[in-house]
Amino acid sequence: MKLWSKDATATSQLVEQFTVGRDKEFDALMAPFDVQGSMAHVAMLTEQGLMTAEENELVQKELTNIHTEVLQQGFVLPADVEDIHSYVELLLTQRIGEAGKKIHTGRSRNDQVAVDIKLFLRATLQEVKQETETLFSLLITLSEQHKDKLIPGYTHLQIAMPSSAGMWLSAYAESLVDDMEMLAAAYAITNKNPLGSGAGYGSSFPLNRKSTTEKLQFATLNWNSVYAQMSRGKTEKAVATGISYIAATLSKLAYDCCLYINQNFGFIKFPDELTTGSSIMPHKKNPDVFELIRAKCNRIQSTPNELTLLINNLPSGYHRDMQLTKEILYPAISDLKACLQMTCLMLSHMEVKADILKDEKYKYLFTVEAMNDLVNKGVSYRDAYREVGNQVDAGTFSYDYKQLLHTHEGSISNLCLDDITAEMKKVLAKF
Amino acid sequence: MKLWSKDATATSQLVEQFTVGRDKEFDALMAPFDVQGSMAHVAMLTEQGLMTAEENELVQKELTNIHTEVLQQGFVLPADVEDIHSYVELLLTQRIGEAGKKIHTGRSRNDQVAVDIKLFLRATLQEVKQETETLFSLLITLSEQHKDKLIPGYTHLQIAMPSSAGMWLSAYAESLVDDMEMLAAAYAITNKNPLGSGAGYGSSFPLNRKSTTEKLQFATLNWNSVYAQMSRGKTEKAVATGISYIAATLSKLAYDCCLYINQNFGFIKFPDELTTGSSIMPHKKNPDVFELIRAKCNRIQSTPNELTLLINNLPSGYHRDMQLTKEILYPAISDLKACLQMTCLMLSHMEVKADILKDEKYKYLFTVEAMNDLVNKGVSYRDAYREVGNQVDAGTFSYDYKQLLHTHEGSISNLCLDDITAEMKKVLAKF
Amino acid sequence: MKLWSKDATATSQLVEQFTVGRDKEFDALMAPFDVQGSMAHVAMLTEQGLMTAEENELVQKELTNIHTEVLQQGFVLPADVEDIHSYVELLLTQRIGEAGKKIHTGRSRNDQVAVDIKLFLRATLQEVKQETETLFSLLITLSEQHKDKLIPGYTHLQIAMPSSAGMWLSAYAESLVDDMEMLAAAYAITNKNPLGSGAGYGSSFPLNRKSTTEKLQFATLNWNSVYAQMSRGKTEKAVATGISYIAATLSKLAYDCCLYINQNFGFIKFPDELTTGSSIMPHKKNPDVFELIRAKCNRIQSTPNELTLLINNLPSGYHRDMQLTKEILYPAISDLKACLQMTCLMLSHMEVKADILKDEKYKYLFTVEAMNDLVNKGVSYRDAYREVGNQVDAGTFSYDYKQLLHTHEGSISNLCLDDITAEMKKVLAKF
Amino acid sequence: MKLWSKDATATSQLVEQFTVGRDKEFDALMAPFDVQGSMAHVAMLTEQGLMTAEENELVQKELTNIHTEVLQQGFVLPADVEDIHSYVELLLTQRIGEAGKKIHTGRSRNDQVAVDIKLFLRATLQEVKQETETLFSLLITLSEQHKDKLIPGYTHLQIAMPSSAGMWLSAYAESLVDDMEMLAAAYAITNKNPLGSGAGYGSSFPLNRKSTTEKLQFATLNWNSVYAQMSRGKTEKAVATGISYIAATLSKLAYDCCLYINQNFGFIKFPDELTTGSSIMPHKKNPDVFELIRAKCNRIQSTPNELTLLINNLPSGYHRDMQLTKEILYPAISDLKACLQMTCLMLSHMEVKADILKDEKYKYLFTVEAMNDLVNKGVSYRDAYREVGNQVDAGTFSYDYKQLLHTHEGSISNLCLDDITAEMKKVLAKF
Repeated sequence: MKLWSKDATATSQLVEQFTVGRDKEFDALMAPFDVQGSMAHVAMLTEQGLMTAEENELVQKELTNIHTEVLQQGFVLPADVEDIHSYVELLLTQRIGEAGKKIHTGRSRNDQVAVDIKLFLRATLQEVKQETETLFSLLITLSEQHKDKLIPGYTHLQIAMPSSAGMWLSAYAESLVDDMEMLAAAYAITNKNPLGSGAGYGSSFPLNRKSTTEKLQFATLNWNSVYAQMSRGKTEKAVATGISYIAATLSKLAYDCCLYINQNFGFIKFPDELTTGSSIMPHKKNPDVFELIRAKCNRIQSTPNELTLLINNLPSGYHRDMQLTKEILYPAISDLKACLQMTCLMLSHMEVKADILKDEKYKYLFTVEAMNDLVNKGVSYRDAYREVGNQVDAGTFSYDYKQLLHTHEGSISNLCLDDITAEMKKVLAKF
Repeated sequence: MKLWSKDATATSQLVEQFTVGRDKEFDALMAPFDVQGSMAHVAMLTEQGLMTAEENELVQKELTNIHTEVLQQGFVLPADVEDIHSYVELLLTQRIGEAGKKIHTGRSRNDQVAVDIKLFLRATLQEVKQETETLFSLLITLSEQHKDKLIPGYTHLQIAMPSSAGMWLSAYAESLVDDMEMLAAAYAITNKNPLGSGAGYGSSFPLNRKSTTEKLQFATLNWNSVYAQMSRGKTEKAVATGISYIAATLSKLAYDCCLYINQNFGFIKFPDELTTGSSIMPHKKNPDVFELIRAKCNRIQSTPNELTLLINNLPSGYHRDMQLTKEILYPAISDLKACLQMTCLMLSHMEVKADILKDEKYKYLFTVEAMNDLVNKGVSYRDAYREVGNQVDAGTFSYDYKQLLHTHEGSISNLCLDDITAEMKKVLAKF
Repeated sequence: MKLWSKDATATSQLVEQFTVGRDKEFDALMAPFDVQGSMAHVAMLTEQGLMTAEENELVQKELTNIHTEVLQQGFVLPADVEDIHSYVELLLTQRIGEAGKKIHTGRSRNDQVAVDIKLFLRATLQEVKQETETLFSLLITLSEQHKDKLIPGYTHLQIAMPSSAGMWLSAYAESLVDDMEMLAAAYAITNKNPLGSGAGYGSSFPLNRKSTTEKLQFATLNWNSVYAQMSRGKTEKAVATGISYIAATLSKLAYDCCLYINQNFGFIKFPDELTTGSSIMPHKKNPDVFELIRAKCNRIQSTPNELTLLINNLPSGYHRDMQLTKEILYPAISDLKACLQMTCLMLSHMEVKADILKDEKYKYLFTVEAMNDLVNKGVSYRDAYREVGNQVDAGTFSYDYKQLLHTHEGSISNLCLDDITAEMKKVLAKF
Repeated sequence: MKLWSKDATATSQLVEQFTVGRDKEFDALMAPFDVQGSMAHVAMLTEQGLMTAEENELVQKELTNIHTEVLQQGFVLPADVEDIHSYVELLLTQRIGEAGKKIHTGRSRNDQVAVDIKLFLRATLQEVKQETETLFSLLITLSEQHKDKLIPGYTHLQIAMPSSAGMWLSAYAESLVDDMEMLAAAYAITNKNPLGSGAGYGSSFPLNRKSTTEKLQFATLNWNSVYAQMSRGKTEKAVATGISYIAATLSKLAYDCCLYINQNFGFIKFPDELTTGSSIMPHKKNPDVFELIRAKCNRIQSTPNELTLLINNLPSGYHRDMQLTKEILYPAISDLKACLQMTCLMLSHMEVKADILKDEKYKYLFTVEAMNDLVNKGVSYRDAYREVGNQVDAGTFSYDYKQLLHTHEGSISNLCLDDITAEMKKVLAKF
């Protein structure tokens, strides 16, 4: 077998190819943050007397240029370069000479990558927060709009009691509030500076880690150098956990939509361009978008477990295994953003059917109402139950649901949308 | 087959047995919280004019008695009672008559169970917080104690650079700080009142949900009634997520201990009564406690995924599936508390070997130090590398590690234990 | 804190309690298999000249007695005994003296437990196979019975094309056939003898492992002693995987039933004693049994991942972590058996509604039929599509579904139940 | 927000982009199998009189050409084509006119995709089987080669009893035998023909499904049309399960290698080009390849759970969610193949250190041997234990391990490599 050749060069290439994997693809995403990290590190080295003011000026200026370059649309890492970190150093040295080589003083590849990941994920969490807020606002707006459209409420998937489209939609708005608690926790874990922890055991150089923390606007440090490395994998998992809660909410909403667009329910409708027809079945309006939101969000929900399998039962200290966190987490984040956007697109075109409850089969939604009415008129609970029960059995039960009025907080006549919005603001303030 | 008999009574019994499952076992845990929830509900009903002051007084007094009874050691649910909720009502009616029957007004079994779970989990999270804080303090104390005992630091599980026992232990202390962020998020999600949401669609009774929220000292409400139900399963999953982060930290620490007690490492030791010997191998000191901490904590880490599988792809509205959350989550919480305690027990008896780095094989930990020393003396980096490299190849490399001094935050000579403690205090304030 | 006392006895008790866990509960299940393993081991020792014929006779007779005793209903392990293995030895020595002590010759606790687990799981898989076969037969019988009752077929949960109750039910029968492939693989992995592998490194005694393999009717050995230990955890995971496929089928069937019993679908019905009513909603027929089958089966589906988290990233050689496999797997097996039985119970009482397709909304199921009819009469596909499309748009489309005839294998008019049954027989022959 | 524009064309594009996802990438892999499926379908249509002999001849010839084209290195799907299925039809119609349009008669996109997936996965499983066999043979060869090199055996990661490099390696060979049982089960599930099941409810055309089954060399049919669709997702999960067992074995072996290459163990070595050095630490030989094999294989182990989350709790009938199975499973398969190859590459260059057990710390591996020797000389077990124990305590224990002889099956002196190889052959015969 060719693979097992004793030719060291051929072997090296196989090893190279296997170990690099999809890294370059993700390095391009991290490029601007790598430059940002280096700028802070170099400024700190200068403060500490480890680089001169002139060197610093030279480096900062050129790093600013490189920052602009890597932010260009279509930036890709050249094929012959190992990774983004060595690429930046190479560019720097080519352009400004010796000073470029000094930027790695008191730093290891490990803490450089760690700080890049933290900066990238922090920015990413801000974007996810933004997109989630947009969906939240849309849900609140639509809830207000559809608050008078009654729909059946189900328990055990059995017709139970009256609900409304507004009630249904604002439930998902409130769900996002709780999801943001988890995302905020992930943000807090992410927003800590690992730079200066070296390969996980610090450095004998007199670094000032508080200074880079301030320059990179981290809330605080990963103080302990061993922990700074241990937080790799764990930070990614925290982010995966955070987004998986939003994904769970989207998945459930998408499931409801697939059910409600089904002809046996028929509560909601979407324009043709948002559903998929069939070349042979003219009655088909397939909710492919919701099915794929559900599927993608269910996949996202598997990422925390995927990362646990990756990082679990490894002793402390860096392991190369960590490299794979990127290819697990980064596509999941992109998918979530796409799903948030597509959910907005779909919901903003959703039509809720009028007079759903007019259908005969839904009248039993009101047995509890009828009984409560009797109780309020002084009939004992037992008698009320018997009376309504008899009507149901005899097929004579009916109820005029137009008179329905529920007053308490969070009931169909009192959705408390402002209160839910206030809760969301409180959580968002944590970012 | 007997099972398929047409005998309705026999069939009912089979159904009863299958559907009850392990519920009674967990109901006993929730009993005091069920009583507490009823007390708040009844007081609110009285404020709203749905019960009289006399009825209220009677009920409150008797519920206080029942609260004491269910808190007794050894309380179990009688066999012929359906669940804790009907048991409390039954007791009440037996003792105070008609007023007891009114306590279910404007409430459904669904929101009653939901509020019980929230109250129980909130109390549980406080306990977990407590136990975690205890372990944290112990780790900080031991770090201070062992800060001068150097041990090898590994990357890729290869000997890399010098670390210390204090550095190693305080890394785990800081790990718990991040874990508490996740637990605090779970706490925030838990600490919201679902009472008054009925079966998930509210009630036509004029309830005052803000009043019960205040009485039960919840931070706020689950406002939307549909969401109040939707938060079942999700709340349990948030708690599972929170404790799974602590579990990950304990598991990793236990793994390190299993490795460091191994004879090839031999960094730490435990008294005989904390390890397991062998009847035939006198040299054996098996770390069974750490292996089981690891195993139990790895199992705990699977619970969020387990709960996701349970609650995922269900349309909105209550489903009986929710019943199983208890038998997934509650034993996991008990296991975590036991693991926190056993970790304290083990660590408080741990002996760290002195002079570990005297072993010849560890001298290469200091190649970086030696190079940095040369660089600080003005030798260029390249020359320093060549010189040290030559010494290594020739087998002449040596380094007096006693002179080692690292100054920056989080390095072996500057553990920042006070800073880490301050971070912990900040997170704990969120509970 | 009491826990950290320096009192070695108190500490030992805490360690004892923590490490034993729920083991005694599961040991009772394994008792008869432990005795069986010892009988084979002792007979082999005798063949190899390591015990005398007299000793053997004495031991075999008493082990036969003990076997009967541990099979008694209500057998529990005495509180003061460490585990089932030491209990059996203790009984033996008390009753027959010195010969009892010899049964552990050339054996370690590790391979004793390993063979007990294999024997127990092998028997258990046979039971699961049995119960699955029972459900399979019921599904085939019901398919035949309901083959003419048409129901809508859905794709994307949208009304698509005609199906039948018989088609629907026999799909699940065939699903079990594939599930049994996985169970058979688990069986093959289980049905190998680890006895004689010692603690994972064999023994210097001249054992004859082929002899015990034959006596215990294993298909073959776990040959390599290291692998014999490595197969712990892995065997349990294989069984978990096997049953998780059956669980997936049951969960899906239960989901369908929850949907079809819902009033918007209304395809099936169950007698009152198999559904749960509501004290206030007389129209409710909650499918709690199916919801709990679904929930339990979804939990079972999480066990392979749970076991992976437990055993993954551990170096070769026995670890105490293995102990926890029992409390993950054994309750899952019991749950699956209960779910198989309850599915049989429910289905054997299921009523399928007649004339479901008479409902107007289902007529579009037949657009494809209508087009195919036209094509068969010589109309071009394009013209047929246009004609039927126009009818749909004009609201004039109709189709007499009574004439429906599909001839090919596995279509509604040709269910191939005999072929599916033949496939099942082929898989069952692998056990 | 642009996204929510009322412009139907813009909206359609967003939907298109979101729903297509990474499908084209995977379609290229399935292209040859799609052509193969069409060839069988068309031949059957001709047999059934639904196409003429002339049409058949024309189509078969051109499909053969297309088959060659899509197998060319570098084949990619044109950008303006929807998917591989429509592309093949398009090409055909462009080249041979009307006959090309007929190939979709009695077939739906659903069963076309289903059969493509089955054919692709079947071929893939054959490749995985091949690569696994190669690794198996290498392990057996190396076991024979290193059978006399003793290494310590560990339990609880504590030094326990003597093992050997040959024993260690052949344990992994035997592990692959059990893994192949699972892969064979996946193969059996995959090797069944879904073609002719239409969209999951069959067709009114008089198809002959046995004929296509034979032509495509499937072992049998997915008989029931509903089940044929239900097996989508499930088949992919079965394959994921199958490969996850091999991945578990590779991951564990890689873990052992990372441990054994560590300087505290130091049992094995690899040439420089297969390890990664450090620019600053000349002593480093990082086992990156094994770390990445472990990481990739741990990720692969998460795929069955990932697929469960995707397909679980969906009612019967096709859902678009199925599309995502490809992007979960296909990269996992490629990763596994790469890991199998890299494991072979590494192991074939592995050097096992000589005389490992000469190190003082390993002498206690032989306490059991020493005791057994005494027992064999007639000393009672208790006296032997006391004697050896005293030697250990006094530090005088020693043992000449060169005399070690274990005779039983699977012990260090009797590895039974031929028997293990015979077991492998038996499992491989199932493919």
